[in-house]
Amino acid sequence: MRDFSRDHRWLSINTATVRRQGDLVAIIEACARHGVRAVSPWRDQVADVGLDRAVRAVRDAGLDLSGYCRGGMFVADAAHRAAARDDNRRAVDEARALGAPCLVLVVGGLPQFSRPGSAPSKKLADAHRMVEEEIAYLLDYARSAGMPLALEPLHPMYAADRACVNTMRQALDICDRLDPQRSGALGLAVDVYHVYWDFELEAQIARAGGDRLLAFHVCDWLVPTTDLLLDRGMMGDGVADIPAIRAAVEREGFDGYVEVEILSNRWWSQPMDEVIATCIARFGTAV
Amino acid sequence: MRDFSRDHRWLSINTATVRRQGDLVAIIEACARHGVRAVSPWRDQVADVGLDRAVRAVRDAGLDLSGYCRGGMFVADAAHRAAARDDNRRAVDEARALGAPCLVLVVGGLPQFSRPGSAPSKKLADAHRMVEEEIAYLLDYARSAGMPLALEPLHPMYAADRACVNTMRQALDICDRLDPQRSGALGLAVDVYHVYWDFELEAQIARAGGDRLLAFHVCDWLVPTTDLLLDRGMMGDGVADIPAIRAAVEREGFDGYVEVEILSNRWWSQPMDEVIATCIARFGTAV
Repeated sequence: MRDFSRDHRWLSINTATVRRQGDLVAIIEACARHGVRAVSPWRDQVADVGLDRAVRAVRDAGLDLSGYCRGGMFVADAAHRAAARDDNRRAVDEARALGAPCLVLVVGGLPQFSRPGSAPSKKLADAHRMVEEEIAYLLDYARSAGMPLALEPLHPMYAADRACVNTMRQALDICDRLDPQRSGALGLAVDVYHVYWDFELEAQIARAGGDRLLAFHVCDWLVPTTDLLLDRGMMGDGVADIPAIRAAVEREGFDGYVEVEILSNRWWSQPMDEVIATCIARFGTAV
Repeated sequence: MRDFSRDHRWLSINTATVRRQGDLVAIIEACARHGVRAVSPWRDQVADVGLDRAVRAVRDAGLDLSGYCRGGMFVADAAHRAAARDDNRRAVDEARALGAPCLVLVVGGLPQFSRPGSAPSKKLADAHRMVEEEIAYLLDYARSAGMPLALEPLHPMYAADRACVNTMRQALDICDRLDPQRSGALGLAVDVYHVYWDFELEAQIARAGGDRLLAFHVCDWLVPTTDLLLDRGMMGDGVADIPAIRAAVEREGFDGYVEVEILSNRWWSQPMDEVIATCIARFGTAV
């Protein structure tokens, strides 16, 4: 297991962590200032400054990317399916332009939430089928673009509205069916917030293996959690056994950036430099 | 699948659903008034009126029980373990005195939340082990008392503080190990709120089979959900496909009471008779 106590060379900042405090260019400059070597930007933040400017800002700062957030929201009714496909191909193109190592996929839940305007449904099994079909469809395009897809299982509390892929087992079953040859074109983004609770987490990390572990995200689960979306914790403030999960991931050979992604009203109300400094400090003590 | 559109003979009211509106005796009387044939009381509500009075009230109203809530909170440090065991044996005794068909088990999460005062830990794997040891221990006592134990997988958002058994698969693995002969002494309480999201829910219901399906609880998952504990929805107000889940359970032979358990600040602020009347109405249209 890598020693993170001496420096933060393997820290990446997911730009959602400080999204309220400045635009993408400001975040990139702040990361560079703090010696952070990598970021993982969100599409809307890229769109706000323009793709070309985002590409230039990343290059000028000399940053790596640890991922690009995000493609997905695959579940749609027939009237919204073509737009969803176009949208996802554009996400692949943007990820490639930015030099991302993978495109993170948040797959969507029921159609009325995944692609608003879609006819409502309560049939999660239909959503599961559509997710798999649409990943298969996008995978062809992503392969030709050389862009690996990182399927992110989201916490089950998001099953209906954000992602109906909710466990490592479920995500790996999909990988096994769509990429049985383990080509590297399809793998997982593992976020401790979403998976820490799973009794078979270690077994499924081992099942994934290094070649399917494309991204590793950290934050913490607070007790109590006061908001389902925007009360994620700084590493060390909650109950997730982050070092143990990192150890399991690294045992399989994962040696990439560890990405801090914290969606939190509390941390969004702090100055950007203070949040980044705290991420760096906790990276050395709680990750 | 049973037809619930014509009467509510298979409705049971979990007494937590109207816990703020009156004591257990008042709830029992209201249920009897509405022609509800069964209830599932909570231990603290029984304690508030006294066990003897609760037993009499149930008998005088001619009600069945569909379960007794709840034993568990098995995870404790060494200093709190004996008290936890005593507490659980008392829960079995109370369930028997009340004529409950099963004691529902909410197994506890990390020790500092499960049995406050216990030394804190982040080791869910230790909690999993302790839960299984303690269920095994209680099972001997429960068998001799003739009281089936209904292990309830809770939604993963409660893994740290309420129950570290979070999926049907995990719960059934425990049943397989502790009661391989399927004696009937150990089974599941299936609550749609906790399990509706699970991609393998139907498969695990089939794996459980009728002999391990000891209790079936309904309410609904609201989008958005504004509170992790107290924003459960009335059946039909959310996104859970309750009739499909009931169909799966009944396919395995479940033919008992369907228990409405809604923990909700919103419904707790309505008059008791109105809540019960709404449960009855929705039972016929959304269950």
